[in-house]
Amino acid sequence: MFVKKMRDIAKEEITAGKATFKQVLISAQEAPHFAMRRFIIEPGGYMPNHTNTVEHEQLVLSGEAEIGIGERVFNVQKDSVVFIPAGTPHWYKNTGRVPFEFLCMIPNQEDRIEILENK
Amino acid sequence: MFVKKMRDIAKEEITAGKATFKQVLISAQEAPHFAMRRFIIEPGGYMPNHTNTVEHEQLVLSGEAEIGIGERVFNVQKDSVVFIPAGTPHWYKNTGRVPFEFLCMIPNQEDRIEILENK
Repeated sequence: MFVKKMRDIAKEEITAGKATFKQVLISAQEAPHFAMRRFIIEPGGYMPNHTNTVEHEQLVLSGEAEIGIGERVFNVQKDSVVFIPAGTPHWYKNTGRVPFEFLCMIPNQEDRIEILENK
Repeated sequence: MFVKKMRDIAKEEITAGKATFKQVLISAQEAPHFAMRRFIIEPGGYMPNHTNTVEHEQLVLSGEAEIGIGERVFNVQKDSVVFIPAGTPHWYKNTGRVPFEFLCMIPNQEDRIEILENK
């Protein structure tokens, strides 16, 4: 594939979160080094504190949220650029009235996700 | 760095193109596997036909353009998802009245750019 439209790509709900959905825009099968995904967290939704075995490179596309990374909390909105190192605990909470949407790229490596007890 | 704002990041003009600018949002020095850049092509601007030694994963953020990839030409706009394999000739032309902006990720590998004679 060379070009596709985001609206044609299926969404799946992320059961570890609340009101959180993922679209795989370019998969590990389609590209040699990394995958491009979009996440959508509806108003009131969140992703609990967790670690991944791979890093995240992210761009906020719309909405606003609090993101916890390690011991810090950031307020982010459209055009915030976010880097989460591999293994660093992180969480997301939509703090606005519209969907919080962000792009998230990860390398084509095994990604083991661990949900942490404390939020 | 964990979070930065796009507007705080320097733009550089791409001299191989016309009215084309690049921002490095997450550099190869900041992340282990791939870099995140934003390109801005002003109305009337373009990038000529060229090849890269690395693949591109792209998301159109705003505006509209024609993109040539190999022998095909695509009309793209906000939320178009674009994959350009390594070594495939490609070009961009802003066909709208506002800046054409897109995110472009590449792996942390040497990127040799070759501008081709024919557009």
